[in-house]
Amino acid sequence: MAGMSLDVQRDLIATAHALAEAAREATLLHFRKAGLSADSKEAARFDPVTVADRLAEERMRAILAERRPADGILGEEYGAKAGTTGLTWVLDPIDGTRGYLSGTPTWGVLISVADAGGPIYGLIDQPFIRERFEGGFGTARVVGPSGEFPLACRAARPLAEAILLSTFPEVGTAAEHAAFRRVADSVRLVRYGMDCYGYALLAAGQVDLVIEAGLQAYDVQAPIAVIEAAGGVVTNWQGGPCHQGGQVLAAANAAIHAEALALLNG
Amino acid sequence: MAGMSLDVQRDLIATAHALAEAAREATLLHFRKAGLSADSKEAARFDPVTVADRLAEERMRAILAERRPADGILGEEYGAKAGTTGLTWVLDPIDGTRGYLSGTPTWGVLISVADAGGPIYGLIDQPFIRERFEGGFGTARVVGPSGEFPLACRAARPLAEAILLSTFPEVGTAAEHAAFRRVADSVRLVRYGMDCYGYALLAAGQVDLVIEAGLQAYDVQAPIAVIEAAGGVVTNWQGGPCHQGGQVLAAANAAIHAEALALLNG
Repeated sequence: MAGMSLDVQRDLIATAHALAEAAREATLLHFRKAGLSADSKEAARFDPVTVADRLAEERMRAILAERRPADGILGEEYGAKAGTTGLTWVLDPIDGTRGYLSGTPTWGVLISVADAGGPIYGLIDQPFIRERFEGGFGTARVVGPSGEFPLACRAARPLAEAILLSTFPEVGTAAEHAAFRRVADSVRLVRYGMDCYGYALLAAGQVDLVIEAGLQAYDVQAPIAVIEAAGGVVTNWQGGPCHQGGQVLAAANAAIHAEALALLNG
Repeated sequence: MAGMSLDVQRDLIATAHALAEAAREATLLHFRKAGLSADSKEAARFDPVTVADRLAEERMRAILAERRPADGILGEEYGAKAGTTGLTWVLDPIDGTRGYLSGTPTWGVLISVADAGGPIYGLIDQPFIRERFEGGFGTARVVGPSGEFPLACRAARPLAEAILLSTFPEVGTAAEHAAFRRVADSVRLVRYGMDCYGYALLAAGQVDLVIEAGLQAYDVQAPIAVIEAAGGVVTNWQGGPCHQGGQVLAAANAAIHAEALALLNG
């Protein structure tokens, strides 16, 4: 990001919003419609891929081919494309496909831009609600049905008063589940089922922690950009970078991050 | 409902929508706002009651005092008021207070009208999304950000292909949890965290089952009206009426209701 001109930043932001608009239209074409089809990428694990997922990524890639042809792309559906600018677009057209298949408004479109160090700008879009959370390049805001608001993670509070989110109660492996439970048993409230919308709620100052495991790079990079822009801290369960995926500990502030990290390793 | 004139039905529907408008405004006044206060009605169980919850019920009761003074009222926050018409308004100004406190768009305003036999009309309103599901008096529809659609529960499919929702993975007592798990282990997908929005998704044909326990009358009556109007079946875990609360088995059709009922008892 050092040395990147404001013009380039503005172009990246405008491109990201153009991608989000295209993905919104594509994903809503099939959301809650009868006859939704889904197949499974892995026989052992339920991971539906819908027509909408592929259509949205195709449309986003077409826009990038037009507007940012020299950038790299890492997409959930169509894999990696090398670039020459040092910038990579990381795309998850429908994060939370199981939520999408259930009709819940918790899935989202994840769009981010990374340099060699990780994500530098990202957005989380919920097409059905028409709500878009974005962070990076000096911006941290949400635009939704109630208007536009700055994003800011909440201030530190005791862990016993914290709200923790995770998409599935099982979380990951047995060992990961046990580590997660140590945190879950120490907080005020645990809620499940929010998909990527949970990270957006963290950036919006509504919850204190999101803890998940088994994620992919395209699941985490946009959330990292949005949450960091809102003042939060996102690492793996060892306190290191997590933009390649795996275990994620997203926290509203450094104090509660340290408390949760100790319990995960405790 | 037998013998009720169309004029009375229309007045009840119009009144319900007026209540929903008032509750929407009141609940959004405090949703996602800083400094949200919450206290606990029961020391042993986390059950926050917000300023918004009380304000919304006060405003709804004021409208009923004006428009339908002779009807009874059963409200979550301010209890029961006897009436003389044989009709009772059953109100839950914020169903899903924990979701509300977490900023999730899964809580809702529940409004219904009951006669001696149970609910005859109801609506589930999600103020933040601006989505309202209603059922009864020949109506079954949702109006939301994508427009207006009829509500219709989905057709029968094998249990192994079904989607099951419940708000908390713990569900209820240990015995209730064990019974729930027998169904959960037989379906394709289980999702948590939807509060009353889960019942709305069932009525909208998105999921097959919602199973919960420990509910109150004001938690279930509006969902019962909406789901039955959409062709679904709602009973307790013994197959009997559940409009007084307790255990709820809400199913998209009679076939999957029978399958789930057998597993709950078995």
